Amino acid sequence: MTKLWGGRFQKSAESWVDEFGASIGFDQQLVMEDLEGSVAHVTMLGAQGILDSKEVEQILAGLAELKKKAEAGELEFHVANEDIHLNLEKMLTDLIGPVGGKLHTGRSRNDQVATDMHLFLKKRVVEVVELIEAFQKTILEKAEQHIETIAPGYTHLQRAQPISFAHHLMAYFWMLERDKERFNESMKRIDILPLGAGAMAGTTFPINREKSAELLGFSKVYPNSMDAVSDRDFIVEFLSNSSLLMTHLSRFAEEIIIWSTDEFKFIELDDAFSTGSSIMPQKKNPDMAELIRGKTGRVYGNLMGLLTVLKGTPLTYNKDMQEDKEGMFDTVHTILGALKIFEGMVRTMTVNTERLHSAVHSDFSNATELADYLATKGMPFREAHEVTGKLVFTCIQRGIFLLDLPLEDMRKESELLEEDVYDVLKPEAAVRRRHSLGGTGFDQVRIQIDKAKTLVSTN
Amino acid sequence: MTKLWGGRFQKSAESWVDEFGASIGFDQQLVMEDLEGSVAHVTMLGAQGILDSKEVEQILAGLAELKKKAEAGELEFHVANEDIHLNLEKMLTDLIGPVGGKLHTGRSRNDQVATDMHLFLKKRVVEVVELIEAFQKTILEKAEQHIETIAPGYTHLQRAQPISFAHHLMAYFWMLERDKERFNESMKRIDILPLGAGAMAGTTFPINREKSAELLGFSKVYPNSMDAVSDRDFIVEFLSNSSLLMTHLSRFAEEIIIWSTDEFKFIELDDAFSTGSSIMPQKKNPDMAELIRGKTGRVYGNLMGLLTVLKGTPLTYNKDMQEDKEGMFDTVHTILGALKIFEGMVRTMTVNTERLHSAVHSDFSNATELADYLATKGMPFREAHEVTGKLVFTCIQRGIFLLDLPLEDMRKESELLEEDVYDVLKPEAAVRRRHSLGGTGFDQVRIQIDKAKTLVSTN
Amino acid sequence: MTKLWGGRFQKSAESWVDEFGASIGFDQQLVMEDLEGSVAHVTMLGAQGILDSKEVEQILAGLAELKKKAEAGELEFHVANEDIHLNLEKMLTDLIGPVGGKLHTGRSRNDQVATDMHLFLKKRVVEVVELIEAFQKTILEKAEQHIETIAPGYTHLQRAQPISFAHHLMAYFWMLERDKERFNESMKRIDILPLGAGAMAGTTFPINREKSAELLGFSKVYPNSMDAVSDRDFIVEFLSNSSLLMTHLSRFAEEIIIWSTDEFKFIELDDAFSTGSSIMPQKKNPDMAELIRGKTGRVYGNLMGLLTVLKGTPLTYNKDMQEDKEGMFDTVHTILGALKIFEGMVRTMTVNTERLHSAVHSDFSNATELADYLATKGMPFREAHEVTGKLVFTCIQRGIFLLDLPLEDMRKESELLEEDVYDVLKPEAAVRRRHSLGGTGFDQVRIQIDKAKTLVSTN
Amino acid sequence: MTKLWGGRFQKSAESWVDEFGASIGFDQQLVMEDLEGSVAHVTMLGAQGILDSKEVEQILAGLAELKKKAEAGELEFHVANEDIHLNLEKMLTDLIGPVGGKLHTGRSRNDQVATDMHLFLKKRVVEVVELIEAFQKTILEKAEQHIETIAPGYTHLQRAQPISFAHHLMAYFWMLERDKERFNESMKRIDILPLGAGAMAGTTFPINREKSAELLGFSKVYPNSMDAVSDRDFIVEFLSNSSLLMTHLSRFAEEIIIWSTDEFKFIELDDAFSTGSSIMPQKKNPDMAELIRGKTGRVYGNLMGLLTVLKGTPLTYNKDMQEDKEGMFDTVHTILGALKIFEGMVRTMTVNTERLHSAVHSDFSNATELADYLATKGMPFREAHEVTGKLVFTCIQRGIFLLDLPLEDMRKESELLEEDVYDVLKPEAAVRRRHSLGGTGFDQVRIQIDKAKTLVSTN
Repeated sequence: MTKLWGGRFQKSAESWVDEFGASIGFDQQLVMEDLEGSVAHVTMLGAQGILDSKEVEQILAGLAELKKKAEAGELEFHVANEDIHLNLEKMLTDLIGPVGGKLHTGRSRNDQVATDMHLFLKKRVVEVVELIEAFQKTILEKAEQHIETIAPGYTHLQRAQPISFAHHLMAYFWMLERDKERFNESMKRIDILPLGAGAMAGTTFPINREKSAELLGFSKVYPNSMDAVSDRDFIVEFLSNSSLLMTHLSRFAEEIIIWSTDEFKFIELDDAFSTGSSIMPQKKNPDMAELIRGKTGRVYGNLMGLLTVLKGTPLTYNKDMQEDKEGMFDTVHTILGALKIFEGMVRTMTVNTERLHSAVHSDFSNATELADYLATKGMPFREAHEVTGKLVFTCIQRGIFLLDLPLEDMRKESELLEEDVYDVLKPEAAVRRRHSLGGTGFDQVRIQIDKAKTLVSTN
Repeated sequence: MTKLWGGRFQKSAESWVDEFGASIGFDQQLVMEDLEGSVAHVTMLGAQGILDSKEVEQILAGLAELKKKAEAGELEFHVANEDIHLNLEKMLTDLIGPVGGKLHTGRSRNDQVATDMHLFLKKRVVEVVELIEAFQKTILEKAEQHIETIAPGYTHLQRAQPISFAHHLMAYFWMLERDKERFNESMKRIDILPLGAGAMAGTTFPINREKSAELLGFSKVYPNSMDAVSDRDFIVEFLSNSSLLMTHLSRFAEEIIIWSTDEFKFIELDDAFSTGSSIMPQKKNPDMAELIRGKTGRVYGNLMGLLTVLKGTPLTYNKDMQEDKEGMFDTVHTILGALKIFEGMVRTMTVNTERLHSAVHSDFSNATELADYLATKGMPFREAHEVTGKLVFTCIQRGIFLLDLPLEDMRKESELLEEDVYDVLKPEAAVRRRHSLGGTGFDQVRIQIDKAKTLVSTN
Repeated sequence: MTKLWGGRFQKSAESWVDEFGASIGFDQQLVMEDLEGSVAHVTMLGAQGILDSKEVEQILAGLAELKKKAEAGELEFHVANEDIHLNLEKMLTDLIGPVGGKLHTGRSRNDQVATDMHLFLKKRVVEVVELIEAFQKTILEKAEQHIETIAPGYTHLQRAQPISFAHHLMAYFWMLERDKERFNESMKRIDILPLGAGAMAGTTFPINREKSAELLGFSKVYPNSMDAVSDRDFIVEFLSNSSLLMTHLSRFAEEIIIWSTDEFKFIELDDAFSTGSSIMPQKKNPDMAELIRGKTGRVYGNLMGLLTVLKGTPLTYNKDMQEDKEGMFDTVHTILGALKIFEGMVRTMTVNTERLHSAVHSDFSNATELADYLATKGMPFREAHEVTGKLVFTCIQRGIFLLDLPLEDMRKESELLEEDVYDVLKPEAAVRRRHSLGGTGFDQVRIQIDKAKTLVSTN
Repeated sequence: MTKLWGGRFQKSAESWVDEFGASIGFDQQLVMEDLEGSVAHVTMLGAQGILDSKEVEQILAGLAELKKKAEAGELEFHVANEDIHLNLEKMLTDLIGPVGGKLHTGRSRNDQVATDMHLFLKKRVVEVVELIEAFQKTILEKAEQHIETIAPGYTHLQRAQPISFAHHLMAYFWMLERDKERFNESMKRIDILPLGAGAMAGTTFPINREKSAELLGFSKVYPNSMDAVSDRDFIVEFLSNSSLLMTHLSRFAEEIIIWSTDEFKFIELDDAFSTGSSIMPQKKNPDMAELIRGKTGRVYGNLMGLLTVLKGTPLTYNKDMQEDKEGMFDTVHTILGALKIFEGMVRTMTVNTERLHSAVHSDFSNATELADYLATKGMPFREAHEVTGKLVFTCIQRGIFLLDLPLEDMRKESELLEEDVYDVLKPEAAVRRRHSLGGTGFDQVRIQIDKAKTLVSTN
């Protein structure tokens, strides 16, 4: 069929070639942004006297009509019209006649598509930040309920030291806080308008880019038209930030999964966030946590994909860049869903405080207390560590824990050990006494939570 | 709504949670494979006397009905039924009543989905290999037409030595040959049946896995049921092989793009494989080559995505693995399309033999000839290289080429240079004389092409 | 300083530019392969009469001298000489005079470096395969000791069905078997000689590439000289195969780490494969398993790195390709180390059979038995699943397991349940009865192990 | 040998296991940061009265001695002491006796290594930003020289519209500006101190973390000790930012390589940034540009590697995290080198203004002017595009350009075309008239350069 750009061509592509090159299958997701951009463009063209007021009126009416249809889901897109821009332009011309062709004055698909992407991502990043904050609030609430819930703290997935369970949950609050920071900072590079860059060199028409920016709510315009049409940094940056967010969710998911095992049983997920098995009737699987952990791969893959696309491409626009979209759409969809699910999963999960309590009373996670006790009495820390290690080994051989070891046996390794060591060895004491700034001591956790509250919006 | 696995659950998920977890949106692409697997499974169950012949008959009739509907595009899938397996089972039960529930005897979704994936990929790899071979044949044809077309050969994108243009094209033949080899070898690990592994431990029913394999056309069955349900190596391997294929296509695409520039103009693409610009009427862009180069990123990303999914997941099945599908479907779609397009693009492109001819007559790509000439006369190669370098520099200063340099000027650098050097310096001679095995000499290229022909099927 | 290729240059690079471009810092690892390749090349040049026997003798003597020094670690490499090839050539010329320059007759660094890489990887892949097999043997031995060790089998890290612990271990045997297959198959594309391709077009000297191949132990020569110097597929393929191997090790490592927790305690690692903490005296960390899991990232990264390097590079050699080496060296080093460590870790670990035994007696992993029992008695599987789910829920509420539930309570859900159900519910019976091919039934595991033994060399 | 953490261990690892787990081979690069951190820590311990002033004095003296030796390159590191922390602690104890063991009071290797990494990266990011700015200044200088140098502008590597060469160069200025922004913003998350987090729970000693922060020049301390020891976001963020930087350099490198071809010849690189061939004496290869393009793969790989490492790891410290270092060191080294080289390469390159000038006078890149001319006269743009396309086709058939086409032939397509069209078609006019904000018009480029100058420091 006849192409809008076909003047110098003698032969048209076969339909399967068209189909391979067409982006309408996915870039129709930009329909609202494309219309929004066109409205601003034509308004500016009118204000500058490039189009006369009647032309502007006709085009705006046509665009309004298309928008209404789009909202009603009544637009029909065609592969033969390649992409969202040409599809809409064709529809406009069908609707209002040849004057529709004037919409493209002083504009190219190169600056148009870049504009759509900036508009789209601006909105989505706001949503992402909102969902991050909603999740942070849920973590805060859950943490407040568990400040005095003592739990084993791990390094190397081995019991390390007893902690406040709130402290553990709050670690994720801070990761999300950094995610929020990064998404917010990236806005600076999303909130900048490419429209007016033309194909890549600017235009000879007396356009007013700052007017367009104002109409579309952008703070700045690109200062270089070649950069404007070939810049996809803001999408890579979005994918990088999303990859880190998913890294955090994957770590939390891993813990949810481990905590849900028969062996740990630290938490129980709500039925609404678990699924069963088609063959094993007893199963209650933490499917959502696993799925989110798995979806990390998809987001990393989208990042790697776009970096690969951009590597070594010369200026300015190349068709390779059409590949910027699907990975971005998919990532937006994935992280919005993952945040929403995770928030609900954490909000509705039951923490088995009993189980956590008994866990820290039957392990050696209080061994550091013993070493610190000796160090405080003047023994060099390395020696205190050695002595404690020997006492732990003695206990393991006897099948008991440090609190069960008689003082006389303790004193065989060091005379510095006295009756008061048993107070020090109690897990509650171990947690309480870690009152260094940012530590797990109950008071510190309270301070931490108060500080965190100031970082989430209060409405 | 009630889940097929819901016996022990007290509460059902909200619909947006269901939607996040559901795979029916994409795994419906496995509808034919899932039905095929079920037909074989129930046939085997009958043959083993696990189901009676009436039950088998009823179920087979139901499956046949579903297949007919699937072919007619009449099946309606529902997110509430999660995936393709439960959707089809629900439809079957709706159709033939509770006996449909017996289809799942001795089977789990874990071995079922793995079976579907193996079936799917077996078919697709055959198609990939066929398209690779079709492309190889086109390269062979094009090469045969250009054995004596002399062209500049490049290293570092700098003119290096004159070559036969056929030789250059044939380099891609051999890359594709390795791709074919790898895809064919991978079949060994695709053509192995997981069905009968159950949820992961096998089953207590007296099933016959070898019978199922025979019915489905598999050569082997997995020897370990836990491996059977958690193995996704065959998909990673497919993505790795696809990544290398795309690497090759991206290199060829880069050359097509460079050769199509105004500056090189070595080839002209057919209009059917080029597109124009919405703003610049003179443009004829090698869009398809650019797009394929860009799509390399998507395939690399899919590979990286699945590797990430699998990293550190414990045995056996975890929900993370649901993420194996979309990347695979997307890659299948991408490489089949890319191969088909590339074949057409190369078949229809015009080679500007005149331009190639004149290129090699106005450069220094014959400098190696001079060095070799001197080396043959006994000068150590390093010295010959030095002498030639100086002569090249002399020419550059005078704005001439080696063939234009008078003998007396040459001999200032070495007395070994005599009148016959001018024959040696002719590009045609340079190509012809490279008769080392696999070299660019015309005779060698003919031998190479003959050898290559034996590697592609003759029908 | 003066470059070996400096004839036409008027100005030399500053040393820090040289340093950035030089590869001698890492490609000195190819010293033996480079010398080996040169010995074969000069021998062939002599056999073909391209060099006379005296020249060949001199050069061979020089190369032998350099080899001796290399073995003694006495060679001193210089950044000013860029790479291993020019360093060795310079040393040779210093040693035997200008005749050393004749070594480069009919050869280029482009085919030389490719030859070195092929030689290097051929040796390394043999070592990798040997270590894989050594590890497989250790798994086999461990499995044989634990055929009748009953353990919980997992899906979603939730207890699924009881299994033979040997069966679980053997799953890794088969993953490694596939790794071995892939590495062995890749040899076909490593065992092919590029030497004789020259800079990229072949050479005018009457060389004999098949002679060189024979001398160096290669089965084939590249049929296209341009492909020969620009092909890095064999390295990508090595990195892909290594990535899958690391995926497997990362999964096994994850399980080792989980099994080593206080909560699971299924195994205890030998002290030699664990480490302690600088601050917590009780810690015994599965550091080696964690490190191997972590090193998966490095190997994936190397794969992604080389794919990125190759994407979109035109033929033939480009300097980008120098980046093929470090990732390959690093991967060789990583996987050889990881295999060796993992073998020792598994060989020396203690399996807590008591713990595993008691685990399967206090869970619901026998629920499938109940469902299968009902299905065998004629109830459609879906209904049997539903009934069992309800009985599991009843038990959970009472804090008991299925074996503890009185028959009368069972029969409230289905009259099909009779006294013999308690035999079926015993974990030992559950395992034993899974005698489907490749299932976890003890007899099946024995058959599996016997089959596996035929796949590892017997010496 | 005896480990510093060996108290509870009965058996020590074999040396090759040690070697696999040891990080001293690469983390010795942190020697200065580790000593710096220790000096601050012990100073704080003294100020808090945790150590007495004599102990502090002794330890500080020992650390000062070690620092002196480190500067002189006299420290000898041992694999048996695992990492930089234990190596230095051992040396300290050897030097000053058991009091050295007190240095570790209230500190763990977990917070210590995190502190080292933060210190290290803080310094390196400053260097990166400095080199980016140096490169920006060079681009500015070069651009200022070429404001009125007219060159072809490309989309799809096809001639699109004539541009100012300065405009093209300036596109890279803005990419680098964004890189600078991102690196600077990331500092917020690097400039935060983990020290005092202990193993992960904080410490019972009355330490003062804010004092430590002040001594080390950090603005903040981590508010959660578990996050403090397990956070590696700041390194991922560094690798992401570096990946984008390398993306930009790879694009510029690609253009440098293309511009350096015989076919384009738009620039000539200085000899100092080019290399020759060992076999082809005429070659002058843009090796540095190719190498930087290639090194993009390494940085992407390092990013993907660390993301993979972190995916799915539970809190808090796991040995996997040791894998954070080599990729970071390698990336720092790579991007510092690449920036330095690229700056020199651009500074010393010669722009062939003649060649660029003649290029734009013999192509159709002025076709948009014709379409715009018609649109200005009231023809809808789409129609103007069509008309121009036909005129281009006419010219191609006659082997002429638009400026050569007689008016009468033009007017066959549209009566709107008049004599003044020839002025519009001149490339100089085409550039000059693109005076939209950020466009390539000479005045606009001047405004752009002035704006850019305010963004680089003036010293």
